[in-house]
Amino acid sequence: MRRPIVGVMGASEPSAGNLAAARQLGRLVAERGWILLTGGRTEGVMGAACAGAKEIPGSLTLGILPSSRGGEGSDVDIAVFTGMGEARNMINVLTSDVIVACGVEGPGTVSEIALGLKAEKPVILMGASEQARALFEGLRARSRLLHAGTPQQAVDLIENDLRVRRHASTT
Amino acid sequence: MRRPIVGVMGASEPSAGNLAAARQLGRLVAERGWILLTGGRTEGVMGAACAGAKEIPGSLTLGILPSSRGGEGSDVDIAVFTGMGEARNMINVLTSDVIVACGVEGPGTVSEIALGLKAEKPVILMGASEQARALFEGLRARSRLLHAGTPQQAVDLIENDLRVRRHASTT
Amino acid sequence: MRRPIVGVMGASEPSAGNLAAARQLGRLVAERGWILLTGGRTEGVMGAACAGAKEIPGSLTLGILPSSRGGEGSDVDIAVFTGMGEARNMINVLTSDVIVACGVEGPGTVSEIALGLKAEKPVILMGASEQARALFEGLRARSRLLHAGTPQQAVDLIENDLRVRRHASTT
Amino acid sequence: MRRPIVGVMGASEPSAGNLAAARQLGRLVAERGWILLTGGRTEGVMGAACAGAKEIPGSLTLGILPSSRGGEGSDVDIAVFTGMGEARNMINVLTSDVIVACGVEGPGTVSEIALGLKAEKPVILMGASEQARALFEGLRARSRLLHAGTPQQAVDLIENDLRVRRHASTT
Repeated sequence: MRRPIVGVMGASEPSAGNLAAARQLGRLVAERGWILLTGGRTEGVMGAACAGAKEIPGSLTLGILPSSRGGEGSDVDIAVFTGMGEARNMINVLTSDVIVACGVEGPGTVSEIALGLKAEKPVILMGASEQARALFEGLRARSRLLHAGTPQQAVDLIENDLRVRRHASTT
Repeated sequence: MRRPIVGVMGASEPSAGNLAAARQLGRLVAERGWILLTGGRTEGVMGAACAGAKEIPGSLTLGILPSSRGGEGSDVDIAVFTGMGEARNMINVLTSDVIVACGVEGPGTVSEIALGLKAEKPVILMGASEQARALFEGLRARSRLLHAGTPQQAVDLIENDLRVRRHASTT
Repeated sequence: MRRPIVGVMGASEPSAGNLAAARQLGRLVAERGWILLTGGRTEGVMGAACAGAKEIPGSLTLGILPSSRGGEGSDVDIAVFTGMGEARNMINVLTSDVIVACGVEGPGTVSEIALGLKAEKPVILMGASEQARALFEGLRARSRLLHAGTPQQAVDLIENDLRVRRHASTT
Repeated sequence: MRRPIVGVMGASEPSAGNLAAARQLGRLVAERGWILLTGGRTEGVMGAACAGAKEIPGSLTLGILPSSRGGEGSDVDIAVFTGMGEARNMINVLTSDVIVACGVEGPGTVSEIALGLKAEKPVILMGASEQARALFEGLRARSRLLHAGTPQQAVDLIENDLRVRRHASTT
């Protein structure tokens, strides 16, 4: 049984609150034995989530990079180089079992939430504004869109989602 | 001097209003001699915009398809097959000189608006809700985000944008 | 009925013979009303084939670029920017109805021949060494691999191939 | 310091000899603590190399899949879903520190060797025919092309290559 992959998306220049939340989320994801996927670079939510995960022994961080070589953060264990720029956001989405947006601050994050919904992946919005929640809920998408106020709530939602799917696949 | 390329994005199952607007926009784009770019399939905004363009003699429609082969609409003059699924949205954006979102109804359109902003392309939201306008304006992006109420207004904005850039490049 | 698309592939620093052949091939492709597809840049076979095509009034050249912006040759009518580097070779192949390798001199060309065979596209090797012919013929592929000594022979093979397929699709 | 990634490429329907070699190569790669990268599917060289690696405790196998979901072999620890079909071959190449072609039997493998040379990655041909060796050596590429008769020789070449690069980066 493969370890679940949790994709954590967010801005490269996030607010202080989202930066701290990303770090805590990375740690919680790693504590549960899940693989942490990010966009692989060193800045912002990507870097903070990986740093949080690497506080936990045995953690595994997977970075999907826009570049052909280089630019990966020092807390990335496995760097996948796509050479595709932002088109790699689709790979982030397809490779994740669940996606968590740690704030909705930049266009890259918005694209990943939208591509996640399009790909019918469960997407958790953490700390999103009312406005952002309403926009995504109003889209015609068959995907599950969930909301979390804190990293702990996000992880509880993921745990529940994985349990439901495991149960579905063994019935 | 290459003909400008205008990318028209929108839902595969749009409202009646957006469907009609897409057709009119396609016609206006073609009348000005610009190339019309869409996601290439037959449904919704893509198909309507191409149908509008093909009412004009000498028009040229470019479809960037998600598939490896097949699925292109009958009003597509040049079908580019990417075999990349929704990751081709990035190519739509990079290949367009200007992007017009004909409504903000589905996640694919939201991803293209967001990728357009990320790629620092001018993006025109046509008939977007207040909510959608506010969300995209609140993102940290250096791109120009413009608003149009009608296809005619969108085309006026494009004309102005192309004039400004032509002037900039000859100065 | 869409105009057929002929992809012409070759080295960015070809031999003088292949450079001249590329120019002639571009002209012959355009004379027949087919769209010429290349990798879009200015150098070598790409640039020469486009220059040949643009000698013919009404010709149409489509360039699929590796970059996100810029780098297209001046004889490219429609520049598709992929931002994907050499991964765009797959799009070249999928978008072409027939592929002609104008010499087998560089690794990019070899990758396109191989991807063309994999995608089950007809591939014409023009001026290939015995060695190259034997290697590609020995691969386990279901695609048609054809051989031409001159641009005129290549165009005759394409004409025949298109006729056969048109006939097949109307029977 | 990240664990090196060794990409093993080969046919989905290889000869019995190449299938056995792939399995042994996967085991040797895993014994050295390197991550094994393949195209991720269950057939042929991909599946055999992963099976070999998973005989070793602590091994890590990374599969880069052409699909958007599903199709990964049971010995793949981390499945990256690209949804890009054969265009994902470029990602295989860019993500590997060294590439080993386990036989040159199908067009997919030829494309990966060629893309590897284009991307200036070290490429090891294992059990290639004289013809294939000569073709690739004759290409205009700045990459190192190496030859191995057996999995053990391939692993010795990789070890040497990694040592040289480690030395270069610390000098």
